[in-house]
Amino acid sequence: MLGLMQNWPLLIHKIIDHAASQHPDREVVSRSVEGPIHRIGYRDVRRRALRCASRLVKDGIKPGDRVATLAWNTWRHLESWYGITGMGAVYHTINPRLFPDQIAWIANHAGDRILMTDLTFVPLLEALADKLPTIERYVIFTDDAHMPPTKLKNAVSYESWIAEGDEDFRWAEVDENAAAGLCYTSGTTGNPKGVLYSHRSNVLHSMAMCSPDCLGLGARTTILPVVPLFHANSWSIAFSAPMSGAKLVMPGARLDGASVYELLESEQVTVTAGVPTVWMMLLQHMEKEGRRFSSLKRAVVGGSAAPRAMIETFESVYGVEIFHAWGMTEMSPVGSIGSIKPALGDLKGAALFDVKQKQGFAPFTVEMRIDDDEGNPKPWDGKTFGRLKVKGPAVAAGYFKGEGGNILDANGFFDTGDIATIDEHGFMQITDRAKDVIKSGGEWISSIDLENLAVAHPDVAEAAVIGVFHPKWDERPLLIVVPKEGRECTAKDILTFMEGRIAKWWLPDDVQVVKEIPHTATGKINKLKLREAFKIYRLPNT
Amino acid sequence: MLGLMQNWPLLIHKIIDHAASQHPDREVVSRSVEGPIHRIGYRDVRRRALRCASRLVKDGIKPGDRVATLAWNTWRHLESWYGITGMGAVYHTINPRLFPDQIAWIANHAGDRILMTDLTFVPLLEALADKLPTIERYVIFTDDAHMPPTKLKNAVSYESWIAEGDEDFRWAEVDENAAAGLCYTSGTTGNPKGVLYSHRSNVLHSMAMCSPDCLGLGARTTILPVVPLFHANSWSIAFSAPMSGAKLVMPGARLDGASVYELLESEQVTVTAGVPTVWMMLLQHMEKEGRRFSSLKRAVVGGSAAPRAMIETFESVYGVEIFHAWGMTEMSPVGSIGSIKPALGDLKGAALFDVKQKQGFAPFTVEMRIDDDEGNPKPWDGKTFGRLKVKGPAVAAGYFKGEGGNILDANGFFDTGDIATIDEHGFMQITDRAKDVIKSGGEWISSIDLENLAVAHPDVAEAAVIGVFHPKWDERPLLIVVPKEGRECTAKDILTFMEGRIAKWWLPDDVQVVKEIPHTATGKINKLKLREAFKIYRLPNT
Repeated sequence: MLGLMQNWPLLIHKIIDHAASQHPDREVVSRSVEGPIHRIGYRDVRRRALRCASRLVKDGIKPGDRVATLAWNTWRHLESWYGITGMGAVYHTINPRLFPDQIAWIANHAGDRILMTDLTFVPLLEALADKLPTIERYVIFTDDAHMPPTKLKNAVSYESWIAEGDEDFRWAEVDENAAAGLCYTSGTTGNPKGVLYSHRSNVLHSMAMCSPDCLGLGARTTILPVVPLFHANSWSIAFSAPMSGAKLVMPGARLDGASVYELLESEQVTVTAGVPTVWMMLLQHMEKEGRRFSSLKRAVVGGSAAPRAMIETFESVYGVEIFHAWGMTEMSPVGSIGSIKPALGDLKGAALFDVKQKQGFAPFTVEMRIDDDEGNPKPWDGKTFGRLKVKGPAVAAGYFKGEGGNILDANGFFDTGDIATIDEHGFMQITDRAKDVIKSGGEWISSIDLENLAVAHPDVAEAAVIGVFHPKWDERPLLIVVPKEGRECTAKDILTFMEGRIAKWWLPDDVQVVKEIPHTATGKINKLKLREAFKIYRLPNT
Repeated sequence: MLGLMQNWPLLIHKIIDHAASQHPDREVVSRSVEGPIHRIGYRDVRRRALRCASRLVKDGIKPGDRVATLAWNTWRHLESWYGITGMGAVYHTINPRLFPDQIAWIANHAGDRILMTDLTFVPLLEALADKLPTIERYVIFTDDAHMPPTKLKNAVSYESWIAEGDEDFRWAEVDENAAAGLCYTSGTTGNPKGVLYSHRSNVLHSMAMCSPDCLGLGARTTILPVVPLFHANSWSIAFSAPMSGAKLVMPGARLDGASVYELLESEQVTVTAGVPTVWMMLLQHMEKEGRRFSSLKRAVVGGSAAPRAMIETFESVYGVEIFHAWGMTEMSPVGSIGSIKPALGDLKGAALFDVKQKQGFAPFTVEMRIDDDEGNPKPWDGKTFGRLKVKGPAVAAGYFKGEGGNILDANGFFDTGDIATIDEHGFMQITDRAKDVIKSGGEWISSIDLENLAVAHPDVAEAAVIGVFHPKWDERPLLIVVPKEGRECTAKDILTFMEGRIAKWWLPDDVQVVKEIPHTATGKINKLKLREAFKIYRLPNT
């Protein structure tokens, strides 16, 4: 027997309709790419999004077609998402930090028909245009006055293009499970894979994000997403801000410390969200200039692990509560967030930061478990490692065009590829990537923990740990270190330093001192190359 | 093209699974009907709900069957909802304040197979049992030690009954649109009508309620629902509290001022919700005893309009923020809630209370409009009246067994039967019931506004306004007043008092002084009877 409630599909246009109706004059404030600060209310964002939607229809775009955006956080980029999804098409966000060849690869894989972009990226696209055969038109997020001369195919300024659109357009009433957004994972191995969000997944993820333990968004919030819209749905903010009537402050192209600080203060921002790198730049600026925050209360840090010193500085020096978050493109993206539970409410100082350094707990709509290799759950004791797996309405069930095949385990969970602990309070901490963890006699050793300990040695500049073959234990850890300039290290010296600071059986079987460790394009240690380099290495006494 | 996200249906059991996993030791504290305070964590609530679910299966209950609860707010009542919905059946909450014949009528209409109840209601049910032929078993929310001798069919204590249940039961994986709950509207005319909630509607409504501008529930919240579970889903709290990990304080059978105050203080409650009557009792107790709140921050007032003096006392005297809410059984039930928007953030004193007296604005998932009789939208100016209509995933599309036929208008909106204004900030204010509003020459006059003004006259004890036939204007207002004891009123006297305080064309065409005005069972003015009494009345000069 079915309930007798209304059929009200969870469609993205409902969000901007709600904002336009309930929060019509609440502002979206942007640092425009052209320079000046720009202000617009949600009512007008919706009107322009309707124009955009109808204009896409005029250009022959059909429901399900992909429309790419390669752009900074501005009101125009925001409008385009509502316009694209509002006529049934799919926004495909492209990260401009990718190598040009990668951009071409994913635009072709996605089959993007229109590409919307900022002035910033016109030269990049002009150089790349020959490799983008599927793009029928380039829409530049600017007006005619700022439009550069360009030979990009059917190039037009966004303003003149939507001027030909219709404000009385009616949103497409698609299935709530229809595709709405596409974002490719960078993927350390193999080709990027596309995660295809639905209207439903975006709406549910955003509703969860509004709750007090996540972003805590209400009509009185002012939020500045430093996290770009191209970084996995801007962690929901492009949806959750209008959903809740929060004022939205868009930083445009300038993410340096001084520019972000200026906006945080001038717009009296209360909540912000971004990756550790931008917070490092912000903190450096503030320390150098002797600044304080006058309105900021909460900063969400995700994308990669927040260094403990950063958390401490925000909280102890600047009085801003840090919410350490974790997620993945495959999770829309937020999987956990570090609000403090009442059982931990009395913690202070180091004990509190021990908890804040963990990646938080799963909100409603995210199921989380840590499993052994056979899919059996491991205990939540804060010590035992397991493969981190997740399930939920905003978690990927597969990749675009079936790449990667079935990605769910027998229980319907998605294996994140991370190794993590979960403590008795549900706080998760990433300890390693699954492919990097060292499996020694059936037990797991965290390469990251060993690396963190090794770099604490005064003579060590950088450290990497890989597992190497061992006839008895299958794998044992090999520590590879780069000494600080002008310093020398010996294996014995470092092992003596590590002894007593970790379990005895975790101690690396050997230490190799090298001049350099290979890195990936994004600055991470390239363990693939490192394993390659040590392919013929054999542990002593084996 | 569909998105590639996981199929994760919005089922009620996901809520208690989440609470048990992420907030296992977070407490549900109840004042038991037997007397003592009782404590249990969400992990154990889930375990016992699983037993309850499996025990229902053993009793032959099938998905879609109705299981009635006639009970106070306690942990056992809470568990039963998760148990009932967790095996696919439908909880049917019965309001014990209904007349016994009404209880029998709705239990029969619902076809309830099992009835779960408190010790309090055993005598009532024994007197009524002959009229409840569909009930196969009575489960009394107590243990064997407190079980009274009773001849109720197959009566058993809840504790001994679930002891035969299975903690390893697997929740039923039903369609998210499957029926989950049933609640009858009291209905001033005709028979009660059943609103049939789905899993999806309850989950979405509860997610919306967690947001900062609604209940604002997080893991650090402690919430006390004075509003009963039988009052339209306890305004979501039975779901939204475990969903967010909030501590849940259940007041049991004692809703008097002293008992509620004691729990608010002893459990350090931060958020509470209930109808104006209980807050009046609480405030009277506090004033008499000279008490203060040490933890309470937010009180949600709904069910009927909150008197302005109550709002002012809570805020000005006790420092508790009042969230004035409005809803209907047909809306799961919350339709609007009065958080203060930033545009009003600077208001103080009388101007602030003018806003707080309105019923607030619609959260995401509720669409709201005010229409004329032809379904055309009226302006949001805070002055123009319209028929209040709503739409959303937690709004009824029809009543149980098709009673009342089609209840949606051509735009798919549900007509609430209320007349309201909405101001430029989206704040809605109920001005009248549609059937009571006076339609004078195409314009509407609020009977409630006229009544409120009339009782402000020093000699008037009670006032009622009805529309009566007028040859030119179709309808004109007739004011009927009861003088205060020992006072006298004349029509001229009262009309002189009203002049200048309202628009001239609103002024009643006549005033009739009577000894008594008829009331309904719930104490409201019975306008049906009043219209009957004045059926042959003719206005002067017509």
